[in-house]
Amino acid sequence: MADLLVVGSVALDTVETPFGKVREVLGGAATYFSYAASFFTPVHLVGVVGEDFPEEHLRLLKDRGVDLAGLQVARGRTFRWTGQYGYDLNEARTLDTQLNVFADFRPAVTADLRGVPFLFLANIDPEIQLDVLRQMRARPRLVALDTMNFWIQGKRQALLRVLAEVDVVTINDGEARQLAQEPNLVKAARAIAAMGPKTVVVKRGEYGALMIADGSFFIVPAYPLESVYDPTGAGDTFAGGFMGHLAAQDRVDGATMRRALVYGSVMASFTVEDFSLNRLIRLAPAEISERFAEFQDLMRLPV
Amino acid sequence: MADLLVVGSVALDTVETPFGKVREVLGGAATYFSYAASFFTPVHLVGVVGEDFPEEHLRLLKDRGVDLAGLQVARGRTFRWTGQYGYDLNEARTLDTQLNVFADFRPAVTADLRGVPFLFLANIDPEIQLDVLRQMRARPRLVALDTMNFWIQGKRQALLRVLAEVDVVTINDGEARQLAQEPNLVKAARAIAAMGPKTVVVKRGEYGALMIADGSFFIVPAYPLESVYDPTGAGDTFAGGFMGHLAAQDRVDGATMRRALVYGSVMASFTVEDFSLNRLIRLAPAEISERFAEFQDLMRLPV
Repeated sequence: MADLLVVGSVALDTVETPFGKVREVLGGAATYFSYAASFFTPVHLVGVVGEDFPEEHLRLLKDRGVDLAGLQVARGRTFRWTGQYGYDLNEARTLDTQLNVFADFRPAVTADLRGVPFLFLANIDPEIQLDVLRQMRARPRLVALDTMNFWIQGKRQALLRVLAEVDVVTINDGEARQLAQEPNLVKAARAIAAMGPKTVVVKRGEYGALMIADGSFFIVPAYPLESVYDPTGAGDTFAGGFMGHLAAQDRVDGATMRRALVYGSVMASFTVEDFSLNRLIRLAPAEISERFAEFQDLMRLPV
Repeated sequence: MADLLVVGSVALDTVETPFGKVREVLGGAATYFSYAASFFTPVHLVGVVGEDFPEEHLRLLKDRGVDLAGLQVARGRTFRWTGQYGYDLNEARTLDTQLNVFADFRPAVTADLRGVPFLFLANIDPEIQLDVLRQMRARPRLVALDTMNFWIQGKRQALLRVLAEVDVVTINDGEARQLAQEPNLVKAARAIAAMGPKTVVVKRGEYGALMIADGSFFIVPAYPLESVYDPTGAGDTFAGGFMGHLAAQDRVDGATMRRALVYGSVMASFTVEDFSLNRLIRLAPAEISERFAEFQDLMRLPV
């Protein structure tokens, strides 16, 4: 079992879907990621919150064993995001973004975290992602990165620089097409792999995920859910399950990568069953193995 | 190895996609279905063409061993369809439909075909589908049906009557939601299963297919293609590969059904690589096994 470090946002989200609305609930990429990964392996979070960040949220993460020594509390207000989803739930419409303390976030990886072997650079300015990577004492065993349209469009060169240095990129389908400037998803995934990362994981929302590693494809369906309430955080818990399993196994071979992709899908499938981290908070570890077994059955092609 | 009977349209299609345009090429649900299925098992086609139907198209089907004794040649012109696809290729826009001889098509199943054990009722008026089923001497071993939005909206009661009597329905995702009047696809598939068919196959275009049988799900991805030229006929060749494999094995158990779904996906993946039946015409049987093996690898979750 190896340790896992995540650098990224901790936020307070206001989210409306056709199934309800929540105000200033716990959110942020590093939050979702670390909470999900904590079911698998020890997790360290580097991030920033404001003075207004509710103590109960810190308690929640600590109770799952997430190490918050790297979580700075800065003067000012916590990052806030307000978004809305329509019935198709595949794309969020951002109504408001208040970066607040996140605007000046310069992550400092403390000395005792610089040797952590598994590193996830959550969606954040690619210059900061590269800076975090530079702070590591040795090249981690596996570095994965997530990004989004905002950086693809606004900081393409910096993004290409950091992409050249990571092992895995997780990206959604539309953004993969945008990054590769290629409408065909298969060609796009190959083109992104050619930018550096040996493994490209394309998240396709309700259609699951696709991984290309060493030129060969693996495709995982999404779990067939009867009720999806809120897709916020699905991609980050997906990454948390994926990286969590790899770190827990301390392996990065092809077979482990495939199982990790399914664990990612398992965690994402729970997240969307409720708002914020609510479903994960009431998640029993046994449910993870049960749903993994259901995925095995879902995908099983008898010889 | 068991025989397979298909009843449905034979057409001349004019199709435009972002990658080209073809005029009055061979098309129609029964055509695509029978051509694909002929790689697996003996196929009999019941349909109608006009006096203008090119002899070369008949030759093509005969060369693949498709039995055309049930193909009527009626006075008048062959059914013509004109459609267009945009870049997303998921939905055809119908520009023109000329039913011609297909408007008065009343399929007559000849005596020697009334005992065929595998029957596919391609997309056609559900009253005609039911009439064909009534003409069979004994209840076939397996009856599958395809339908579309036009009948769901316009002949719902007749469609429900025939659905109650078939084993398998193949339907695309939007139409499944429409038929079940339920936006969630999982609930929709279960609702359709409750209408009669024990097995519901939902076609999701570039996202593959989903099957619910006896309450449990199986999901097959689409083959990751670098070039898709024309999706016309994909659903019908999918059904052709699916039913072709079942008939060839003369089995309808769960494991065979799963493999059949992959053979359906294999055949559909070839069809979309070119216009009309062009890719299937130059398809070598060995390519089918090769692509099936690629699907196995694509879906393989190591234990």
